[in-house]
Amino acid sequence: MNAFSYRIAGVQPSAIREILKSTADPNVISFAAGNPAPEAFPVEEIRRISDEILTEEPIAALQYSITEGYPKLREWLKDDMETKGNFRRNAEDLIITCGAQQAIETCAKIFCNEGEAIICENHSFIGSLNAFRSYNARLVGVETDNDGMIPEKLEKALKDNPRTAFIYVIPNFQNPTGVTTSLERRKAILELAYKYNVLIVEDNPYGELRFLGVDVPNIKSMDTRGHVIYAGSFSKVLSPGLRVGYMIAEKNVIAKATVALQTSTVHANIWAQMVAYRFVTETDFEAHLERLRDIYKNKCGLMLNSLKFSMPMSISFTEPEGGLFLWGTLPKGDMNAFCRAAVAEKVAVVPGNAFLMNEKDISYSFRLNYSTPTDEQIEKGVEILAKVARTMY
Amino acid sequence: MNAFSYRIAGVQPSAIREILKSTADPNVISFAAGNPAPEAFPVEEIRRISDEILTEEPIAALQYSITEGYPKLREWLKDDMETKGNFRRNAEDLIITCGAQQAIETCAKIFCNEGEAIICENHSFIGSLNAFRSYNARLVGVETDNDGMIPEKLEKALKDNPRTAFIYVIPNFQNPTGVTTSLERRKAILELAYKYNVLIVEDNPYGELRFLGVDVPNIKSMDTRGHVIYAGSFSKVLSPGLRVGYMIAEKNVIAKATVALQTSTVHANIWAQMVAYRFVTETDFEAHLERLRDIYKNKCGLMLNSLKFSMPMSISFTEPEGGLFLWGTLPKGDMNAFCRAAVAEKVAVVPGNAFLMNEKDISYSFRLNYSTPTDEQIEKGVEILAKVARTMY
Repeated sequence: MNAFSYRIAGVQPSAIREILKSTADPNVISFAAGNPAPEAFPVEEIRRISDEILTEEPIAALQYSITEGYPKLREWLKDDMETKGNFRRNAEDLIITCGAQQAIETCAKIFCNEGEAIICENHSFIGSLNAFRSYNARLVGVETDNDGMIPEKLEKALKDNPRTAFIYVIPNFQNPTGVTTSLERRKAILELAYKYNVLIVEDNPYGELRFLGVDVPNIKSMDTRGHVIYAGSFSKVLSPGLRVGYMIAEKNVIAKATVALQTSTVHANIWAQMVAYRFVTETDFEAHLERLRDIYKNKCGLMLNSLKFSMPMSISFTEPEGGLFLWGTLPKGDMNAFCRAAVAEKVAVVPGNAFLMNEKDISYSFRLNYSTPTDEQIEKGVEILAKVARTMY
Repeated sequence: MNAFSYRIAGVQPSAIREILKSTADPNVISFAAGNPAPEAFPVEEIRRISDEILTEEPIAALQYSITEGYPKLREWLKDDMETKGNFRRNAEDLIITCGAQQAIETCAKIFCNEGEAIICENHSFIGSLNAFRSYNARLVGVETDNDGMIPEKLEKALKDNPRTAFIYVIPNFQNPTGVTTSLERRKAILELAYKYNVLIVEDNPYGELRFLGVDVPNIKSMDTRGHVIYAGSFSKVLSPGLRVGYMIAEKNVIAKATVALQTSTVHANIWAQMVAYRFVTETDFEAHLERLRDIYKNKCGLMLNSLKFSMPMSISFTEPEGGLFLWGTLPKGDMNAFCRAAVAEKVAVVPGNAFLMNEKDISYSFRLNYSTPTDEQIEKGVEILAKVARTMY
């Protein structure tokens, strides 16, 4: 019988997924997830808004809708993004997707022929890497430091890979490292995209969750030539269960993305799009975001302080200014053994090699999530991690 | 800058989409859509159920969920499908998708290499054809009659195309023709799939909407060797805005589909999955289906009677036993001119060539939808169509 297609035959379930299975055990403290904090959901408002929608315009919420997305939500997003400098109304368009993940996957579908390169930060978000793998893209990793991709390394990657579909970056509070790409580096990445005539896919799910420091302009906002495709999402600022994200790009790119989505999901759940629209227009959205930033600032601070207090000095941690993740790096030794020892003591973290272009390469790092666990779990989990670490380092 | 990928470069927006634009004019009577009747939505129950969910388990409805789908809904579907003979619990699995469309698209993604053939009924559903086109599949059409695909023609297609990813069929109340594949033909198609060792993708969105005659067993229910992948949906029996469908196949196929969906939409909107589950378990679902069948029986009957009363005898129509569509065939002449003349008189129908493997081939047919228009619109629209037809035939 038919074999699987070449494009997807080699793609395996995400390593995180396997780790998350261990977290089905209620005694395991999980720092391995990436879920928003339960207390971050505006449950009362969503219930009220949902009831309004199903009372006032139920058929609109239940019937087929258009692939581009709920027109009112699209207009609000266009206005918002234009204000922030991320949307050139005369040249660009915006489509609603089933989460930013679908925007990323669609970029691979419409731009990347099998065997072509996609250049990523090394390490990068496994969901995106697997989306690229599922089109048989060749993943090319670029070394990063605490300011993001290193431009010299990116230029070498571009020179070495003349058939590059696009550069993929998460400039704000990157998943998995928590690192924010500096303004200088953003400019350098854009200049290199211009010089080598390639696209950039800028994935920004966490941008609104800055709890320290000041915003750095998106690469999108500096792009005057239509090289940047931008993906945003309501998953981290409202609810991931809604599956509402969006993609901004030149009009012809959005037209092609529309054709692609018309043949895959037809449109995102329309009730969810209406909920998102009413939420951003009928409630104090900015106050809601401030509340989320406070939640994550406290959780991140608590985790960092606990780590600094108890972990061996030889293990370093990034200090994110926003988002959901921080990143630990061991001085040497077997990172997977450390992660296995941690899970044996009932604390789950994600081994860094899950985020490499080639999972079999060596990583000395591991990802910690602070948004999902409770404060008590953060303190207790870090204590256990530190005990494991002290026996090894 | 980057060109679009080979796989999608040539895929155009669906012709129906362009026609539907004309139906934005409120004076146009549209027989071109495929929407459920507005009166088919159980608005009160959905509002009550939604409120229950957002009161009793709001975090579960708003948080990330698993790619396979809401466990309770999957179990209900497995039980239901097992009862109907469409699920072999020991060998198969089931995944929730964002509508059956995503199940179909995923079959192309995981099984069809670029340039390989997908064998379809000629005519077939444009959404599926475009999904296949978006992976650069080679569409091979098989002639059909009032009993479905003609086995001799299917066998020739299989012989001529040794690199065939799968056979795609809509056996019940086919879109666009309204035709139901006979039991004999279903057996013959399955035997040919066995003989030539290819898969069948059985798309069954309308199966529950039989309003005349007796059910014919699904091809899936006769398959003992795991050749049939089955796609179902809540779009026509509950609400298409929910975007909840499902796919049944051998366990290893569902595992690969899970990897594919993990990298595209992550999971279907979880609120919608919970609504669907509570609807089928907390209300009298069978009574609801009976109500829908009555609605569509009446609408189909009204349209057919009106057509028989006023259209020239030389134009023939299928007489569907269920579903949402019927199919008119002109004796000769320019079908597109007929469709253009109709829309000029403010009645929209879909020209048959939209459903061909190659839109530039000639079709003498057109698709009529009776589920979306009101009874008044059906009567008035058919009257106008007949006037147009009488000037041409």
